Amino acid sequence: MTSKANIPWEDRPDGCTDVMWRYSKNPVIGRYDIPTSNSIFNSAVVPFGDGFAGVFRCDNKSVQMNIFAGFSKDGIHWKINHEPIEMVEGNTEMIDSDYKYDPRVCFIEDRYWLTWCNGYHGPTIGIAYTFDFKTFYQCENAFLPFNRNGVLFSEKINGKYAMLSRPSDNGHTPFGDIYISYSPDMKYWGEHRCVMKVADFTKSAWQCTKIGAGSVPIRTKEGWLLFYHGVINTCNGFRYSMGAALLDLKNPNQVLYRSQPYLLAPAASYELTGDVPNVVFPCAALKEGNKLAVYYGAADTVVGMSFAYVDEIIDFLKKNSL
Amino acid sequence: MTSKANIPWEDRPDGCTDVMWRYSKNPVIGRYDIPTSNSIFNSAVVPFGDGFAGVFRCDNKSVQMNIFAGFSKDGIHWKINHEPIEMVEGNTEMIDSDYKYDPRVCFIEDRYWLTWCNGYHGPTIGIAYTFDFKTFYQCENAFLPFNRNGVLFSEKINGKYAMLSRPSDNGHTPFGDIYISYSPDMKYWGEHRCVMKVADFTKSAWQCTKIGAGSVPIRTKEGWLLFYHGVINTCNGFRYSMGAALLDLKNPNQVLYRSQPYLLAPAASYELTGDVPNVVFPCAALKEGNKLAVYYGAADTVVGMSFAYVDEIIDFLKKNSL
Amino acid sequence: MTSKANIPWEDRPDGCTDVMWRYSKNPVIGRYDIPTSNSIFNSAVVPFGDGFAGVFRCDNKSVQMNIFAGFSKDGIHWKINHEPIEMVEGNTEMIDSDYKYDPRVCFIEDRYWLTWCNGYHGPTIGIAYTFDFKTFYQCENAFLPFNRNGVLFSEKINGKYAMLSRPSDNGHTPFGDIYISYSPDMKYWGEHRCVMKVADFTKSAWQCTKIGAGSVPIRTKEGWLLFYHGVINTCNGFRYSMGAALLDLKNPNQVLYRSQPYLLAPAASYELTGDVPNVVFPCAALKEGNKLAVYYGAADTVVGMSFAYVDEIIDFLKKNSL
Amino acid sequence: MTSKANIPWEDRPDGCTDVMWRYSKNPVIGRYDIPTSNSIFNSAVVPFGDGFAGVFRCDNKSVQMNIFAGFSKDGIHWKINHEPIEMVEGNTEMIDSDYKYDPRVCFIEDRYWLTWCNGYHGPTIGIAYTFDFKTFYQCENAFLPFNRNGVLFSEKINGKYAMLSRPSDNGHTPFGDIYISYSPDMKYWGEHRCVMKVADFTKSAWQCTKIGAGSVPIRTKEGWLLFYHGVINTCNGFRYSMGAALLDLKNPNQVLYRSQPYLLAPAASYELTGDVPNVVFPCAALKEGNKLAVYYGAADTVVGMSFAYVDEIIDFLKKNSL
Amino acid sequence: MTSKANIPWEDRPDGCTDVMWRYSKNPVIGRYDIPTSNSIFNSAVVPFGDGFAGVFRCDNKSVQMNIFAGFSKDGIHWKINHEPIEMVEGNTEMIDSDYKYDPRVCFIEDRYWLTWCNGYHGPTIGIAYTFDFKTFYQCENAFLPFNRNGVLFSEKINGKYAMLSRPSDNGHTPFGDIYISYSPDMKYWGEHRCVMKVADFTKSAWQCTKIGAGSVPIRTKEGWLLFYHGVINTCNGFRYSMGAALLDLKNPNQVLYRSQPYLLAPAASYELTGDVPNVVFPCAALKEGNKLAVYYGAADTVVGMSFAYVDEIIDFLKKNSL
Amino acid sequence: MTSKANIPWEDRPDGCTDVMWRYSKNPVIGRYDIPTSNSIFNSAVVPFGDGFAGVFRCDNKSVQMNIFAGFSKDGIHWKINHEPIEMVEGNTEMIDSDYKYDPRVCFIEDRYWLTWCNGYHGPTIGIAYTFDFKTFYQCENAFLPFNRNGVLFSEKINGKYAMLSRPSDNGHTPFGDIYISYSPDMKYWGEHRCVMKVADFTKSAWQCTKIGAGSVPIRTKEGWLLFYHGVINTCNGFRYSMGAALLDLKNPNQVLYRSQPYLLAPAASYELTGDVPNVVFPCAALKEGNKLAVYYGAADTVVGMSFAYVDEIIDFLKKNSL
Repeated sequence: MTSKANIPWEDRPDGCTDVMWRYSKNPVIGRYDIPTSNSIFNSAVVPFGDGFAGVFRCDNKSVQMNIFAGFSKDGIHWKINHEPIEMVEGNTEMIDSDYKYDPRVCFIEDRYWLTWCNGYHGPTIGIAYTFDFKTFYQCENAFLPFNRNGVLFSEKINGKYAMLSRPSDNGHTPFGDIYISYSPDMKYWGEHRCVMKVADFTKSAWQCTKIGAGSVPIRTKEGWLLFYHGVINTCNGFRYSMGAALLDLKNPNQVLYRSQPYLLAPAASYELTGDVPNVVFPCAALKEGNKLAVYYGAADTVVGMSFAYVDEIIDFLKKNSL
Repeated sequence: MTSKANIPWEDRPDGCTDVMWRYSKNPVIGRYDIPTSNSIFNSAVVPFGDGFAGVFRCDNKSVQMNIFAGFSKDGIHWKINHEPIEMVEGNTEMIDSDYKYDPRVCFIEDRYWLTWCNGYHGPTIGIAYTFDFKTFYQCENAFLPFNRNGVLFSEKINGKYAMLSRPSDNGHTPFGDIYISYSPDMKYWGEHRCVMKVADFTKSAWQCTKIGAGSVPIRTKEGWLLFYHGVINTCNGFRYSMGAALLDLKNPNQVLYRSQPYLLAPAASYELTGDVPNVVFPCAALKEGNKLAVYYGAADTVVGMSFAYVDEIIDFLKKNSL
Repeated sequence: MTSKANIPWEDRPDGCTDVMWRYSKNPVIGRYDIPTSNSIFNSAVVPFGDGFAGVFRCDNKSVQMNIFAGFSKDGIHWKINHEPIEMVEGNTEMIDSDYKYDPRVCFIEDRYWLTWCNGYHGPTIGIAYTFDFKTFYQCENAFLPFNRNGVLFSEKINGKYAMLSRPSDNGHTPFGDIYISYSPDMKYWGEHRCVMKVADFTKSAWQCTKIGAGSVPIRTKEGWLLFYHGVINTCNGFRYSMGAALLDLKNPNQVLYRSQPYLLAPAASYELTGDVPNVVFPCAALKEGNKLAVYYGAADTVVGMSFAYVDEIIDFLKKNSL
Repeated sequence: MTSKANIPWEDRPDGCTDVMWRYSKNPVIGRYDIPTSNSIFNSAVVPFGDGFAGVFRCDNKSVQMNIFAGFSKDGIHWKINHEPIEMVEGNTEMIDSDYKYDPRVCFIEDRYWLTWCNGYHGPTIGIAYTFDFKTFYQCENAFLPFNRNGVLFSEKINGKYAMLSRPSDNGHTPFGDIYISYSPDMKYWGEHRCVMKVADFTKSAWQCTKIGAGSVPIRTKEGWLLFYHGVINTCNGFRYSMGAALLDLKNPNQVLYRSQPYLLAPAASYELTGDVPNVVFPCAALKEGNKLAVYYGAADTVVGMSFAYVDEIIDFLKKNSL
Repeated sequence: MTSKANIPWEDRPDGCTDVMWRYSKNPVIGRYDIPTSNSIFNSAVVPFGDGFAGVFRCDNKSVQMNIFAGFSKDGIHWKINHEPIEMVEGNTEMIDSDYKYDPRVCFIEDRYWLTWCNGYHGPTIGIAYTFDFKTFYQCENAFLPFNRNGVLFSEKINGKYAMLSRPSDNGHTPFGDIYISYSPDMKYWGEHRCVMKVADFTKSAWQCTKIGAGSVPIRTKEGWLLFYHGVINTCNGFRYSMGAALLDLKNPNQVLYRSQPYLLAPAASYELTGDVPNVVFPCAALKEGNKLAVYYGAADTVVGMSFAYVDEIIDFLKKNSL
Repeated sequence: MTSKANIPWEDRPDGCTDVMWRYSKNPVIGRYDIPTSNSIFNSAVVPFGDGFAGVFRCDNKSVQMNIFAGFSKDGIHWKINHEPIEMVEGNTEMIDSDYKYDPRVCFIEDRYWLTWCNGYHGPTIGIAYTFDFKTFYQCENAFLPFNRNGVLFSEKINGKYAMLSRPSDNGHTPFGDIYISYSPDMKYWGEHRCVMKVADFTKSAWQCTKIGAGSVPIRTKEGWLLFYHGVINTCNGFRYSMGAALLDLKNPNQVLYRSQPYLLAPAASYELTGDVPNVVFPCAALKEGNKLAVYYGAADTVVGMSFAYVDEIIDFLKKNSL
């Protein structure tokens, strides 16, 4: 899970006082970066070998949603496969998959686990694992439809796998809270608990319509650090921003702190315009010492990066908790 | 699970050619049959001791939804407890339950399993077991919200518990198909499969908006006999009718036959008017030899019964399958 | 087109001062009057031979919508075929018909023309003709979808066939006005004009949501007498009532008078409850001298009749015109 | 304000344990009780002279909404004027009134004040006064649109007139809470406060969608007794029930007790079916000693009555307060 | 109310023939111009001392809406307080205020009156006054919820305060007309009249969905000059543009002229993209001789300015009146 | 119909591998290119004389929709009339036209036929012809409302005029398929057939909500080449892209090939922002030898152009057919 490579990094710009800042060369992945793509966004990255590997949501020009493996030395310049991932049997007889999107990748013990929004009579959470980002073993879907934004923890909690997810409906779901579920075996899931709900409009309107887990939670001394998205329903549609929360290490059902202000909200041109305007949607975070690099989908069109320091984020959460 | 008592029965009326017919003394349970009730409907009944036991949905006059145990010698005249069921811990640390409604009861091996629509940040499937209909042991919810109409099979399938359910949203869900899920232990669930979807409007409009499992499937030589509800969305609201399906004995993911015509649709006055007009909603079926007695909620207000012969129903399904 | 039989009739009840009154033995056709039917309603009747013929909307117990021929000596007691009408080619190579409902029948020159709501990628107006109510010759649909309530005039207007219709959408259309179109040949249609629009809520709320032509217009000295339905959208759904209008004989694009009050609105139990509560929906009218017998669907479930005098209706329209 | 006549009364039926019971001869006013009416409902009654006077909502057969004066010796048998109330100038230059419905009548000091839902570019609260129920002096509307269910207090509170109302929108408002406003002069209004909000679905679902003041509050030793309506949004539309609340005598902004269970909900046939099924809508209450007679609209079609004892109602509220 | 400073001004650009033109250095206030802000827009400005004072809508990074005082020498470069306005008691015991947004400021007689959209169980019109933009005295809300865009007149009309407002609902209101109300004392309001309604789609579609008062009306010889916003509902959301109207000096209930074409519609990049794309929303106007400077919110994100000449605007209204 | 002028053209940019590419100087017509215009888009162009003529949708600053004639030597630089087209009588007595938008122009035999979305109690298809783009003869509307995107074929098919259209509703229609209709005389229309329906979401999501004919079909050896628009409903509104289809030459009811990927989707800044963000809407195509120039409306604000080769497009369709 660790890599010999350093994570991507850029210092905070002069004069900037924000706890999180954008990469100056954003977007790092453009919409047409593979020949068939209409857009590349909402994608997952992990350390791998002497660099990084990732699973990328590439909608093609038929606007079919699928996920593609890719590799990078520095986490910024990527070589994404031109063919989508083909799965082989894991613990299931290969259920249907009408579409795949919004992947996350999580290293647990000996392998990389991939979760994504899997089209099985509607969106639900697909699961697969890989050792090499070449062969992917598809497992049973975690849940009944309708669900999105399934994100695994990188360690078992009390001996069980744990996954965050956001139950939804089969359309442009106008609601959404973050739940946790547990599994002894990555096949059967239970012990479902509600972890975080949308905020009150008067307290934190950017996350008052729906919220969903973003990056795989990062273990810190103070708790599991989760970057998540929050949505407000303006008169001209949904606006997606990024926040963070700290979950209890031993019992991640418990939220210790949660950002009342957002960390990053759509303001750059590549976030304000695109296939879906006004979207910042985190799907992965890399940590190296005190440094954090967060990958996020922008405007459902491209991939951007932002940076932060772990201690500053945690300090910010403590001082600005909802 | 078997009872010394005969199931309720009334022969087909003269001149009636329908495969299912109403009890002439419907409704068998009135809306005010316990002192606090506003309505009693969508309730489950099983053979018990020398008679029958049941779990009843009684909405009180605050229109709070809860479930109550009740007992009967003949399955028609019921003594329903005046206090709702109080649960004790089964395999969970007692999760919240904002409301409980639409119970089903299923005897498996050594105990009666109760499933119902459980209010946990929205509707999902609650599970409990009892040996005596006095003490009920509440277990983990089967699924994440939002779900309704969870119905267990009375035998393990390939060594696992099996449950039908209908994923939904958190309102007056305008869609709904029947899925099956499996569990090794009644705590963790997986292997979710879509079993039956709504019908095409032009083929069978009464079940074109949503469908949901009704009674606990009855083992017959030809397959699992399931009574289910189907809904059409008229310009004046939802209309709920009853159909039946035959699922494969060894692999109930497989539908063998399914009624294109309904078996029973709202036509009697107690089905046409009430708190929710035009509802026939089956929740339980008793079988004795070739006889079937089906309990159904009528107009979300009272409980009615209907009768049929097993062989006629199966024959009907074969000849009128969708 | 004329019949040797008298039209059905019942005098105005004592004490009744309404311009239109119900038949005391309503409904004249019950929901189960043929073996397969779930409901029989919104049906058309004309004089035929020494009695009457009709085309009936019978939804079967799969709630498939289709139209059936039927015959009667007295216009009240009907023998409806148990099999739906099978069409043969008229002026088209037999387009698809996913469903057929809400028929009207109109005698023009030498044959009976049948119009109905025809399912061709959504509702539109189907056309057929018959000489004997045994063989029906299907023609091209009059219009593109989406349309309902196509009603022909019994004479050509300025040498062309004329049809009223109500453009709609593909759901529970919440709007609808009455238009007229003309055709030289029953195949190509044009010269579309808006004839009557919904009324202002403050003037005549029962017809403020949508209106649609009902019976084939009846030639009177003062104009074409049309019975139509009007709809108000209450907080509990649509309520359909019956009104009348008088159109100019030479230029039926012109409305001479139109009822501000309804003539008949849901008030009888068979109109208030049924598959769709609160529906009175006229589809045919018979005239004999000064007498009128109107057939209407009630609650989308059964057929009712009402009676009136031509001169009183016209007088009423003149005095109560919108 | 007091009358020489006794209020209508009927003892609680044998075996009935409800705190409120229906009049056995309901409905007391039928839908066609004046020649032009389609329906008579949601109407107000007060003691007057040696009997009672009232203002009645009579929708005519054009379904135009208007209010009519009426008189009765016994409060049960009514003689309603055949012509609607014509207003003369009170404190305004006679603003428009597109429609008038849902009247309430309140005697204050020297005259009867009439409030109603007044159509002025949408629904708002109209105000008028009369001394004799013959001449009515129309005043300025109390509020900007959109508002419904304006109900006055029968005494000034701290020297000012006080009115309950329910801000709404211009359609079938799916929300609604009860507010209070004050006026020094019945012309200018202010000091608006929220008094009662809808209940939580899990606590009292019959009043979880909207609530609105019903009858003029009755002064009791323990507080102002208000009968109000509550609404639940079922999958087949709104269902209106009746509850009660006790407001503080000196500061009616303050709710002392409020019924968690309803007092009366649609269950009689004339409440379950009609122009709008499932409506019980109180608009007036008479008190004589410990007796209460409540007038309510049923199914937006007719007027019903129910009875109760003051002390029992108050006791019930104390024991069953939300 | 007058200031020693000149109002901001920039001449019409060469080649421009529009009656209103943008400031070339727009936006004059950026989204992050105070440390906590997510956006600064829809703000009010008045002459004050030897410069200008203003009240600014600054949504913070929790997207909480609040209003902040600010000061400027030239009306373009602003120093906005970093803390929101804290109110003290005016004529009320300090009602709740869940949020505050969209302020307007109006000098009347001896003080500056502030109106804004005040969150009190939904949006309504808050009122406060100040002498120095340091201490603000909060008064009773003018109206019951739901209301937005309350704008005072700078003089009493016939001895009473007058306010324009736009009754609305509690969401993204899809309707809205401009009303006027009067008060003897800034506490009780009445004499509500509809002043301007949305335009017909075929006449002036940019203002066919809703309209609302913008700036405090400016007294001119020909009438009260009001800048207002109009909204069209496109398939991709609401688009807000600016128009103007001239109201009668003595009876501002009366519209003399009203712009059929808009004066300014979203076309600059800072109007087309931002938190809510396609918004031009005027909230204040300064007049000096024949010059006008209008402040408007752009894209719910920043503040822009536009300029015009009084006589040209009036001439334009006369020639292009709806 | 042919012109002495060459069609506009620009070679494929270096490195571009797309089958269709944008003109580098887009937009070719700006939003303010005539004095009164708010926007100019969705416009039609044909060869004419020694250059080109066109009919342009220019919404004025009142946002009234109308169509204007224009002329160009090179197809890129246009002189558009400042006054909208005034029609004279063709084959109708001049029906109402509340608005006119989205024109197409088609030369057949001896004249230019103009079709457009004509406001007659809602949108429908208007028809006119001209010989010189000065005098336009208005004919009967082709269809009843509601319809949009009427596009003629440039030759009679089996002796009849043929028109594609998209039946719709009277709002922001969330559905839409392409139909064909035939007419012997441009006055009466019939033989309506469904030609192309929206694609399945999983197959081609960019065209899964609605589709509509764009340019007049171009005769090629392999079939009629049609450029059309497809729409996906994102959570932030509709996104319009361009595709192509090849219809059978003799029987254009038959689709031979249809693009699964889009040819052009919103990605340039003038397509991503404007009055309606994210719109590419083709309305005309010019062919010269193997070259194609397509005119399309961008963001409902301006006109853009794109280029392609006929043989490449056909090859692309064959290889990428849905």
